[in-house]
Amino acid sequence: MKLVSYVNGDAASYGVLENGAVWDLPARGAPAQITDFIASGGALPKALEGDGDFSIDTLTLLPVVPNPGKIICIGLNYQAHKEEGVRDPDDKPMLFARWPETLIGHKAPLVIPRISDKLDFEAEMVAVIGRDTGRNLPAEKALDYVFGYACMNEGSVRDWQRHSSQVTAGKNFVGTGAVGPWLVTADEVGDPQALELSLTVNGQTMQQANTADMIWPVAEMIAYITNWIPLRAGDMIATGTPAGVGSRRTPPVFLKEGDVVEVTIDRLGTLRNRVVKEG
Amino acid sequence: MKLVSYVNGDAASYGVLENGAVWDLPARGAPAQITDFIASGGALPKALEGDGDFSIDTLTLLPVVPNPGKIICIGLNYQAHKEEGVRDPDDKPMLFARWPETLIGHKAPLVIPRISDKLDFEAEMVAVIGRDTGRNLPAEKALDYVFGYACMNEGSVRDWQRHSSQVTAGKNFVGTGAVGPWLVTADEVGDPQALELSLTVNGQTMQQANTADMIWPVAEMIAYITNWIPLRAGDMIATGTPAGVGSRRTPPVFLKEGDVVEVTIDRLGTLRNRVVKEG
Repeated sequence: MKLVSYVNGDAASYGVLENGAVWDLPARGAPAQITDFIASGGALPKALEGDGDFSIDTLTLLPVVPNPGKIICIGLNYQAHKEEGVRDPDDKPMLFARWPETLIGHKAPLVIPRISDKLDFEAEMVAVIGRDTGRNLPAEKALDYVFGYACMNEGSVRDWQRHSSQVTAGKNFVGTGAVGPWLVTADEVGDPQALELSLTVNGQTMQQANTADMIWPVAEMIAYITNWIPLRAGDMIATGTPAGVGSRRTPPVFLKEGDVVEVTIDRLGTLRNRVVKEG
Repeated sequence: MKLVSYVNGDAASYGVLENGAVWDLPARGAPAQITDFIASGGALPKALEGDGDFSIDTLTLLPVVPNPGKIICIGLNYQAHKEEGVRDPDDKPMLFARWPETLIGHKAPLVIPRISDKLDFEAEMVAVIGRDTGRNLPAEKALDYVFGYACMNEGSVRDWQRHSSQVTAGKNFVGTGAVGPWLVTADEVGDPQALELSLTVNGQTMQQANTADMIWPVAEMIAYITNWIPLRAGDMIATGTPAGVGSRRTPPVFLKEGDVVEVTIDRLGTLRNRVVKEG
């Protein structure tokens, strides 16, 4: 199943996507919030009949879960020690937070803030939690708690990211990250650690990798996090970006007005956003 | 006005505190969530009559706002360059996130996690935002957007805090931070940068400072944050801890089962928590 979140009148709604048509789920008796739908198990309220309520092309899409309680991101998850094929046993995941206000949906404008010209792209896979994990979830069981996956552009404002030892500021500008185009349930994804992932800017490939190359696979990230805090339905885990980001290139490349950024992951579709400058 | 949040049946409620008595506000027509009450301007639904609904001593208190959208904390806000009396113009606030699951209320047990013996204390003042700031709020106007203040023990698990360059893990163990005993509205606090703050463990003073000594005063923290993200009613800004934390002592001091930690700030009362080990 593929789910999309979108604007419906004054509020956020969500629905099932099939062949370009969207069936609105709250209109069919599902909870008003997609987080509650996910928490309830994500079963469809009844069989979907007819042609759907909307064509996806007519909708203003939102991040696949607009209101997650937590968005936990990892840095440096594709790089260190990859050459040796082993992880330093002393290494721990480098985790940080984003807040939901920073994220947009598929086709929404990605915003270069007025006060920086250093907006960079980061192709990532994001996992969406399906139900309360409790504490100390073993990695072997962790994927059972994942509802689904989506593409993310975990866009970062590099100069503000380096304002202090903590990356918080540069990771939390409004409209600098994108999640979409839709949320694909885990049953349609299969092994989340065997997916090709790429990012293009104006059609030129800038990042290309396979989720098999993560230092901390999704299951181990979840297990680590639940050592300290439970994860809940709708919480997002951003799994890190591979090599190729703009700021590490020579010379550095930053996003410019009019650029089109696409993140493509096997089975998860292509997330596309055009870059604008803050008005 | 002083507000308390507490358990009422199966849910969180909140009320006004006067002379040890609590008037439940949702029972008097106020919104069910304290965040919505704050967003509405925090005016009392009607005059408080009678003796109140509860004695505060009978209540299980919660963090003053149990469901903030964002909890943004600052590190190193009382130390660098204080001797010179000036801030390095290149310095920026070191900010990180906590999530609400990590916080408890006044008198609730502060939890040493099973997997660490390095739980440390941090006395802090916390500011609670009153209404949507929008972006780019000037510091001169920022305090107009603060609803009130409270004491915080921004407890930290030091070994996990040093797992990577980002402090996220050590700052987000369930039950390691406390906020309370109540939320004091800004009109009763006056200048938030002129308050004595102290922390004791088992009656022995471990931290003592004045909020005048913050490198980044509340108003400047808010202005900096709104460069990237709006703050909303109920969001919490933890303003950093002064010298004296246990991990920086020689020899280091960490909290032990049975310890009683008290944070006292002028006009904000005393937040007290007893330490337990995770069962």
